[in-house]
Amino acid sequence: MDLITIEYIGKQPKLNNPMFIEGLPGIGNVGKLAVEHLIDSIKAKKFAEIYCKDFPPQVFINPDGTIELVKNEFYYWKAKKKEQRDIVLLTGDYQGLSSQGQYELVDTILTIIEKLGVKELYTLGGYGLGHDITRPQVLCATTDKQLVAPMKKHGAVFKRNEPGGGIVGASGLILGLGKLRGFQGACFMGETPGYLVDPKSAKAVLKVLMSLTKIDIDLTALEKKAKEIEQIAQQLREMETTSKERPEDLKYIG
Amino acid sequence: MDLITIEYIGKQPKLNNPMFIEGLPGIGNVGKLAVEHLIDSIKAKKFAEIYCKDFPPQVFINPDGTIELVKNEFYYWKAKKKEQRDIVLLTGDYQGLSSQGQYELVDTILTIIEKLGVKELYTLGGYGLGHDITRPQVLCATTDKQLVAPMKKHGAVFKRNEPGGGIVGASGLILGLGKLRGFQGACFMGETPGYLVDPKSAKAVLKVLMSLTKIDIDLTALEKKAKEIEQIAQQLREMETTSKERPEDLKYIG
Amino acid sequence: MDLITIEYIGKQPKLNNPMFIEGLPGIGNVGKLAVEHLIDSIKAKKFAEIYCKDFPPQVFINPDGTIELVKNEFYYWKAKKKEQRDIVLLTGDYQGLSSQGQYELVDTILTIIEKLGVKELYTLGGYGLGHDITRPQVLCATTDKQLVAPMKKHGAVFKRNEPGGGIVGASGLILGLGKLRGFQGACFMGETPGYLVDPKSAKAVLKVLMSLTKIDIDLTALEKKAKEIEQIAQQLREMETTSKERPEDLKYIG
Amino acid sequence: MDLITIEYIGKQPKLNNPMFIEGLPGIGNVGKLAVEHLIDSIKAKKFAEIYCKDFPPQVFINPDGTIELVKNEFYYWKAKKKEQRDIVLLTGDYQGLSSQGQYELVDTILTIIEKLGVKELYTLGGYGLGHDITRPQVLCATTDKQLVAPMKKHGAVFKRNEPGGGIVGASGLILGLGKLRGFQGACFMGETPGYLVDPKSAKAVLKVLMSLTKIDIDLTALEKKAKEIEQIAQQLREMETTSKERPEDLKYIG
Repeated sequence: MDLITIEYIGKQPKLNNPMFIEGLPGIGNVGKLAVEHLIDSIKAKKFAEIYCKDFPPQVFINPDGTIELVKNEFYYWKAKKKEQRDIVLLTGDYQGLSSQGQYELVDTILTIIEKLGVKELYTLGGYGLGHDITRPQVLCATTDKQLVAPMKKHGAVFKRNEPGGGIVGASGLILGLGKLRGFQGACFMGETPGYLVDPKSAKAVLKVLMSLTKIDIDLTALEKKAKEIEQIAQQLREMETTSKERPEDLKYIG
Repeated sequence: MDLITIEYIGKQPKLNNPMFIEGLPGIGNVGKLAVEHLIDSIKAKKFAEIYCKDFPPQVFINPDGTIELVKNEFYYWKAKKKEQRDIVLLTGDYQGLSSQGQYELVDTILTIIEKLGVKELYTLGGYGLGHDITRPQVLCATTDKQLVAPMKKHGAVFKRNEPGGGIVGASGLILGLGKLRGFQGACFMGETPGYLVDPKSAKAVLKVLMSLTKIDIDLTALEKKAKEIEQIAQQLREMETTSKERPEDLKYIG
Repeated sequence: MDLITIEYIGKQPKLNNPMFIEGLPGIGNVGKLAVEHLIDSIKAKKFAEIYCKDFPPQVFINPDGTIELVKNEFYYWKAKKKEQRDIVLLTGDYQGLSSQGQYELVDTILTIIEKLGVKELYTLGGYGLGHDITRPQVLCATTDKQLVAPMKKHGAVFKRNEPGGGIVGASGLILGLGKLRGFQGACFMGETPGYLVDPKSAKAVLKVLMSLTKIDIDLTALEKKAKEIEQIAQQLREMETTSKERPEDLKYIG
Repeated sequence: MDLITIEYIGKQPKLNNPMFIEGLPGIGNVGKLAVEHLIDSIKAKKFAEIYCKDFPPQVFINPDGTIELVKNEFYYWKAKKKEQRDIVLLTGDYQGLSSQGQYELVDTILTIIEKLGVKELYTLGGYGLGHDITRPQVLCATTDKQLVAPMKKHGAVFKRNEPGGGIVGASGLILGLGKLRGFQGACFMGETPGYLVDPKSAKAVLKVLMSLTKIDIDLTALEKKAKEIEQIAQQLREMETTSKERPEDLKYIG
């Protein structure tokens, strides 16, 4: 059994100079939330699934009682207007568990999208601040110096020496390995407290993406989710105040 | 040395449309207890052992002083009555230690049983509640929508969004990877506190299996074990009350 | 670079029906102490070294300031008297770090000694009691039922269900994998508190080995070491009484 | 994708009997600090980069906003004076994460430098004392007995049984695996408290290197850094005194 299994679904897309947008689970689940919202909004079509021995040995249970092996999923979307571009999207249940698994997965992802004609990579994630934030900014890092100015125009922010620890995981590695293979691109990191899933931060990231992709996205659903999470966060803060114990189990609710 | 070594024992079985039942160690050891009881009851015959470099480097000691390398074991049973089916059973000392080992082991198990003509998979496990339970139900998840109704008839229960974390380990992976290879099947999860081995939960699972397999199984031995464990649990509760310390070491007594 | 590198040293031995004795680091370092003492006493000759990527990336420093890559070492000894047997011995700095590394190392060890004509395996280790013991017994487990009686004659003890957790590590795996390959043998486990290196337990194991190998071994040096360790243990007990803190760091001093 | 990827940069150097000097991250970052300072001082040229699946899946962010995949870097320098030697230097962001990755990386490093004609290896690191030290000495260990005296002349110190735990990581393994392949060399370990990066210890190591390489290095920048760190250390000591909490997070500030 190979480390990675790719299952192609239905007719494979022929795309015209597509851009690639990735959002996998991570801090505040910002990247995953943003890409999933985008996929729903533009009604992107799934064309491939990735199974990997470096994902946990786990199935999820659908509402109808059937199981689903954990995986990553590729979607595509064809431009509707002249100013838009075709898009390949990636989201999923997990990133690779081990360092070597991460490198292999990203290498495979790059091979798949290279064949589809992708030259530009946009990866999404959260930047954990460890404290509350009212108006999350979207930090950025790019593969090439000349991409800094255009990304600023789309609303992304560059802060010298932030994130100090660089970018860990698929969002960083896709750019890092991609750069070695001749891709160009940027990572958008929404600021987030990092304790809970953060639709507010995902919304900030999507605003940058809307400018970049020239796609109009309805953000109402995310705003509603953001309010729900804000209520949970408020309840947790109250529990903390009374019990003086940080609710560890709730930190990474997905 | 290969990751997995299969040792076939004696004459290999020729089976007629057999079903497959798996029960490996896990929460409350429910699945292992149930399958071992079933194997003893129906006097199933061992036909293969699996050794694996992803099991711990360990031998167990038999009552006669001889050692036994840790392993998984395959059994078979041929139907005695018209309404029954041939069965292939799997139990063992351990699941794979690593994620990759788990995937490889399950892939090998599926290859072995595919050759024996298996098309249906039934995996057994425990669903840890973290609290006591008087009448454990048997939760279920299936590979296919049309299996939900028949499994309910056998007494299994479907609860929306439970288990919320899906199914982790061999019981889930056998269905997940099996589904990709065209198998159908279900996982039966006996509710259990999860602190100690749980023969009561195993008994509940076996009742569903009795309906499914049309085999009459004497559950007296399990009921006796369940009473013993209930006494141990009672003693532990008393110790807890006095010492205010949860007896960590006893949590996973096998 | 292969997982395992074997460096043969000098002229390779031709042996007559040799027995194999293994003692690698473990609980109380009992096995390693015993085999090293035996090697010194009988002036066994080194004929091979094993380097392995699954050992830590580490060198030790010799008293003369030179470095030594961590390794395992093979020695041999040719019988001096009619009633004695040729012996192959194994000791070393480490066991494999991972489960898979352990299996690979033991498989390689078995291949090496099989070529030298070994059919009998004797592995040495400690059986950690977690409390002090005045007269450590030597527990035993064998590959075959008919070896139980002879091992008892040599002074080894069989206790039903002890060790309850079986034998973990090279001492167990050499017997377990060896049995699958047609070797016979026994593991001798000296009872030990398990906190410190335990020359007293190693001495008990060597007494069984003296009976088994018909070799007379001077145990004075071990007895001296045992007294030194007893003094350290006494000091630790006094420190514990005053500080109420178990000296964790001293537990595995080698 | 291979475990290790080597990217050669520009024209590859032709060197005359070069010596090899390694300094990767480790205790007090002594080795890395020393080699990086040396590279800057002598204006050594980069000729190769190593990427590895056993490094973390991570990119760092340059001051200009561009990303950089974590890596190791090779430099060379050609002798300017008759008494000097050509030098190959290695530094980088990380050592391998796993034991097997460490062995593979070092094996690859040795292959690369062997082709460049290297026969002598000098590895740099820190020797963590766990307490403050005013005048750090530079401990040494060598591959061969006859190297002890010359290393002493260069100011290195040999202390019987120190470091007691040997040398863990690339600095030890390069000598250990190198010795097996016929290289000769020494490891220089600057004494360091080990809590923070330690430019003072790096300076002590560089003084030994200056004697060894006959290169005059301006140590002013390191001395300045050392003063800054001394101030931080002083602040931490004051915080400790008041809060009685050791600032864990600051231990490994790079």
